Amino acid sequence: MTAIRLTISLGLFLVLPALPGLAADPKPEQVAPGVWRLHFGSPEKLTPLSFRTAPPLLEGFDALPDPTMPLDVSRISFSAMGHGCSVGLPMTREERIYGFGLNTRLFEMTSESDAFQPGAPDRSHPGRHVFLRPTDAPENDLNDSHAPVPFYVSTRGYGIYVDTARYASFYTGNVAPKTRGKPAEAEMKGGLSTDDLYKARELSTKTMLVDVPAASGIDVYIFGGPTLGDAVRRYNLFSGGGAVPPLWGLGIQYRGFAKNTAADSLALAKSIRDSQVPIDCWGLEPGWQSKAYSCSFVWNKHAFPDPDGFIRQMLEMGYQVNTWEHCFTNPESPIFEALKPWSGDYLVWNGLVPDFATPEGRRIFGDLHDASIFSKGVTSVKLDECDNQPSSAKPWSFPEASAFPSGLDGEQMHSLLGILYQQTIYERLRKMNVRTWGLVRNSGALAAPLPFSLYSDSYNDRSFALGLVKQGFSGLLWTPEVRDAKTIEEYYRRLELVIFSPVALINGWYMKLPPWLQIDRDKSNRGELMADHEEVTRITRKICDLRMSLIPYLYSAFNEYRLHGMPPMRALVMDWPEDKETFDLADEFMVGPSLLVAPIFNGQSSRKVYLPAGNWFDFYTHEKIAGGRGIEVRKALDEIPLYVKENSLLPLAKPVDHVQPDICFELEVSVFGEKPAAFTLYEDDGLTYDFEHGAQNRIVLNWGGSAGSEEKTGSYKGASRYRVSNWKIAKPSTTSP
Amino acid sequence: MTAIRLTISLGLFLVLPALPGLAADPKPEQVAPGVWRLHFGSPEKLTPLSFRTAPPLLEGFDALPDPTMPLDVSRISFSAMGHGCSVGLPMTREERIYGFGLNTRLFEMTSESDAFQPGAPDRSHPGRHVFLRPTDAPENDLNDSHAPVPFYVSTRGYGIYVDTARYASFYTGNVAPKTRGKPAEAEMKGGLSTDDLYKARELSTKTMLVDVPAASGIDVYIFGGPTLGDAVRRYNLFSGGGAVPPLWGLGIQYRGFAKNTAADSLALAKSIRDSQVPIDCWGLEPGWQSKAYSCSFVWNKHAFPDPDGFIRQMLEMGYQVNTWEHCFTNPESPIFEALKPWSGDYLVWNGLVPDFATPEGRRIFGDLHDASIFSKGVTSVKLDECDNQPSSAKPWSFPEASAFPSGLDGEQMHSLLGILYQQTIYERLRKMNVRTWGLVRNSGALAAPLPFSLYSDSYNDRSFALGLVKQGFSGLLWTPEVRDAKTIEEYYRRLELVIFSPVALINGWYMKLPPWLQIDRDKSNRGELMADHEEVTRITRKICDLRMSLIPYLYSAFNEYRLHGMPPMRALVMDWPEDKETFDLADEFMVGPSLLVAPIFNGQSSRKVYLPAGNWFDFYTHEKIAGGRGIEVRKALDEIPLYVKENSLLPLAKPVDHVQPDICFELEVSVFGEKPAAFTLYEDDGLTYDFEHGAQNRIVLNWGGSAGSEEKTGSYKGASRYRVSNWKIAKPSTTSP
Repeated sequence: MTAIRLTISLGLFLVLPALPGLAADPKPEQVAPGVWRLHFGSPEKLTPLSFRTAPPLLEGFDALPDPTMPLDVSRISFSAMGHGCSVGLPMTREERIYGFGLNTRLFEMTSESDAFQPGAPDRSHPGRHVFLRPTDAPENDLNDSHAPVPFYVSTRGYGIYVDTARYASFYTGNVAPKTRGKPAEAEMKGGLSTDDLYKARELSTKTMLVDVPAASGIDVYIFGGPTLGDAVRRYNLFSGGGAVPPLWGLGIQYRGFAKNTAADSLALAKSIRDSQVPIDCWGLEPGWQSKAYSCSFVWNKHAFPDPDGFIRQMLEMGYQVNTWEHCFTNPESPIFEALKPWSGDYLVWNGLVPDFATPEGRRIFGDLHDASIFSKGVTSVKLDECDNQPSSAKPWSFPEASAFPSGLDGEQMHSLLGILYQQTIYERLRKMNVRTWGLVRNSGALAAPLPFSLYSDSYNDRSFALGLVKQGFSGLLWTPEVRDAKTIEEYYRRLELVIFSPVALINGWYMKLPPWLQIDRDKSNRGELMADHEEVTRITRKICDLRMSLIPYLYSAFNEYRLHGMPPMRALVMDWPEDKETFDLADEFMVGPSLLVAPIFNGQSSRKVYLPAGNWFDFYTHEKIAGGRGIEVRKALDEIPLYVKENSLLPLAKPVDHVQPDICFELEVSVFGEKPAAFTLYEDDGLTYDFEHGAQNRIVLNWGGSAGSEEKTGSYKGASRYRVSNWKIAKPSTTSP
Repeated sequence: MTAIRLTISLGLFLVLPALPGLAADPKPEQVAPGVWRLHFGSPEKLTPLSFRTAPPLLEGFDALPDPTMPLDVSRISFSAMGHGCSVGLPMTREERIYGFGLNTRLFEMTSESDAFQPGAPDRSHPGRHVFLRPTDAPENDLNDSHAPVPFYVSTRGYGIYVDTARYASFYTGNVAPKTRGKPAEAEMKGGLSTDDLYKARELSTKTMLVDVPAASGIDVYIFGGPTLGDAVRRYNLFSGGGAVPPLWGLGIQYRGFAKNTAADSLALAKSIRDSQVPIDCWGLEPGWQSKAYSCSFVWNKHAFPDPDGFIRQMLEMGYQVNTWEHCFTNPESPIFEALKPWSGDYLVWNGLVPDFATPEGRRIFGDLHDASIFSKGVTSVKLDECDNQPSSAKPWSFPEASAFPSGLDGEQMHSLLGILYQQTIYERLRKMNVRTWGLVRNSGALAAPLPFSLYSDSYNDRSFALGLVKQGFSGLLWTPEVRDAKTIEEYYRRLELVIFSPVALINGWYMKLPPWLQIDRDKSNRGELMADHEEVTRITRKICDLRMSLIPYLYSAFNEYRLHGMPPMRALVMDWPEDKETFDLADEFMVGPSLLVAPIFNGQSSRKVYLPAGNWFDFYTHEKIAGGRGIEVRKALDEIPLYVKENSLLPLAKPVDHVQPDICFELEVSVFGEKPAAFTLYEDDGLTYDFEHGAQNRIVLNWGGSAGSEEKTGSYKGASRYRVSNWKIAKPSTTSP
């Protein structure tokens, strides 16, 4: 096809004749409160929105401020050509950009440096070419990741979503349209070294350029603020609202050694339960299947001769069972022949690639899952290998030039595979009215309602922490899972971090012993215990108990994610978008309304923690600290720096070793500050979706100055989930550091 | 656009109804002897062939063997989808693949390892995903390079050219169509480490998959053999035949310090002439222009107040003048306003990107070049920065989503910019009947007739050597230019290598002194001479004299490149495609018909040299060595291992310090072996294109057993270029090692 050039400015549109490929009316159309659609050219039919998981959660928008259009749409331009199409959006020099999914190296997306380079207040912001390709190597400076998302937010208080399943890319201010004005002199400097000559320089006028390959049109969605956080909330509500876990999902997950049989697994599970390290969910790795790489989705009769009995015994010990899989379907799977017409035209590991965009592909795949696992009591799944290797010489997944029966091609399928795969599993369990809390290695746009956390093989603690900080910009969940470690220090620091993630995951898939008995992988596989394993087990329990005590608090945060779109874990710039100190703050994050987490990394003896304006309390000592500044912090190996915002109520549960279906958490409510805001607990069955239809109570905790009160509303009639045993005013302990 | 799936096999086409987007008749059409076109779908109009430099040199095909169709076209499949389109070609397990342009890390393109990993005879060949994106960083494992070319050749004796300016990619055997047969058991192995799980395994049946993004159709050209070398020759002749340099172009080029004024340049040029280091061409770096980064294309009045006088004085000293530039046109250039409508919609370094695909763009740009430089006597140009940064977070060039008045988009323009830019310059000088021999940093498909060598900032001696070995697969020329060096050893080894390249380039652009006076850049810029600069100068002369003595031999090789398509420098697999030892031989190359070059790299005390079957002679000692084996070789620092094939005549000229227009080379013809093949010298004016119209003689040298003879034919009437002063039978010297 010959390239056709169509460049228009919306502001000029009415005086231009109708151009081929352009919509009749590119005026912004409000599709939800504070969400506008701009329709350019002839967009593709198969986009993330065409496969949305849920409709917008419209009632959630009510709590948001009145929307006003945040952009001058007359300055937005569109261009179509053989390569694809593009959109140009005006930027200011000062605005800072976040989002684009879950790359674990970049934070602020106009910055010259990545999240791990020491930040300077005067660092340059020349802009970047930001790619959105699903990859298995998310720690790169191009923004490729396990979950690329064509959505970004700005400190100017708006968000932009580009509805495409193409490998779109964004230029965050580093392109110069011919039509721009005279450049600043500094932009024109030369040099006598190649470094000098090619150094990126900040332009005096900035444009966000969106490159959408192959498409001849595009729908762009503008999310109003007035703040950056409000724009994120609108995006999440537009996506259908955030996912709510089953209560057990907020406990801790352990994944067992891949070669373990049913008997091995039961023995290990029993010994862990005996050790009182709290675990709620047990992951089975590939060995449960008769074939893996590619997968059969049926039980390995030798290793697991009695799946029903195995699952029953695990449930009796208080473990939910999660099974590993990927979607590439082995020739020996019973669905191979039936799935063949509903799969892509290339094989992966000699397995079919199911076309989850066809009802038939979903049905055939889902039916086998019902029969094999869900009907037997498995309540969650780990969906592996659904990412891609777009920049690898030796990719293992299907080519971008694949074709699927749904009409999707390989590029689109790679952008959508994680989403469609999650939906396929989710809808099966939802149909059984079973809440799930799974794992997935690829996700994408509009994913907020999907109850799956991303994870990665990349095992860098800094990038894993960055995933926690960033997940909230893009409607995603992330777990920095703990595996083995080089030192006990590293093990504790990793464990402390995973405690503050949507899935607190300890992954022993390549280790016979749990890491608290042996952190070294080789020694673990030789069955050698660490000398100090009893002490390490004790401290492991202590750290895990912190997670268990936070379950009610986290459950509220997730319910508010669903209802109000506010991510349960998020970067500080989302709460303090006026505070420039937060703009590059990539190693601290908020959990729920009032907890600030500032992980210390392996090898660090201390770190600087920035606390925004106002007062804060050290979680451990209750020491009161004035914010609006950075403080130097040291903590013992078993304590992660954790701060409570003044005027908060923090309900902490008495830790249990797993969340039984009939659990009633015993709460102590700590009062931080003199005029704490109310805190709402959410009470329901913790297991089904009945809460969506009213079977949920809200228990509003209030502090009257000298005593606390609880006010319960709602029509959930089941067993109580909470009992407040104590209210406690937070005061510095005598052991303040 | 919704993805449309069109998958057909040509063999089935006649029984299928007409499908949208498919040609009426996909039968192979012979477009030149042994060159067939397959027309799939609706190809784009703007492709490399639509901008070809020259028509096929049809007379050149006469010397090639009778063509037979090398492939079973009924097994070639085509598929169109939203992403673009794809072609599948059957491969055998055993065939080896070369080409795809000038990436300087990869050699054989199905291999698991790159050219620098130690090769093992049983290495695996799982295939690769091979990308074709123009980049400034050619040393990568994805195949991106300064000159990506959608053409490859196979040891099975055929070549495939895919006519596209898109960023096509190729999967060299590592994809498994669903339609393939049962896999071998070895393909299905799993593992318990991520390395194991993702390890590329060789498939039992192989397919070459071509992914052409954005296009809905494609023309594929099949080049017959019967050998790999024949397929390359057909490709070069189809491209228009190889480029022939002016005689001075085979001398040595020196590029002066970027900050030098006219006076500085004249003084340095004079001192170099006095030192008798042979130099033929003098390069002026950015400082000659009033503006660079972006460029004005007019002289800097302060540094070069009298360009005509400067060039006249340089010519008087025997220097041709080459001027540096890139095409991005500064606002202060006199053509800025005129060029504005004929340029892309994004600026680079605040300069316009000329649309060389429009006659107006070429004319405006070319007219200024005529006025500024060519009319003053400049005979060649260095075309910088016309490559791209497709995988960079901070690209400096224009976006792929640019639009150009010709209808090209940015992606296409990036693939074509080097070619179109070369053509724009070439056609100006050609119109003046002036042969040129330039430099360029981006090239592409069908480039054989273009008299420009590629170069790179990447300064790795191994990858620079690989460029020399690989250039011949893709109709390209390459120079591993010499700049500074860490050690004298490194300097000599680099210099020895550049002597065997199309442009023997010593680039002093960031050094005040030539490297033979100071190899250290910083010391050079402080004006400090090396202690042993006199000895280094002497050895520099010696090495450069070898190049000067080879000019007649090289001139024949280039004339035969033009007439027969055989690359003057090439990998050994091109001459010995039956010898599996040559398949991975990435560090030796042939120059002309009979010289084998095996560079020793910096830090190596010796190396293994593989000599194909037959006898060889050490160039320096004339020792006779049996081939068909590898030999361990040591050489002094001033000698590069160089071998002459038995039964060759090698004319060597008495070295001169530059090639005057009226030069007559004094030749000694060495006779290697008892029945040497005839050798043809090409005699013409050495400066114009009159040789294309018959003004060229051929002087056939023959050895009768005891005496040599010369037979001259042709209608060139000018001064003689050669005088054979001696015939000499090569015998081992007494100093044999």
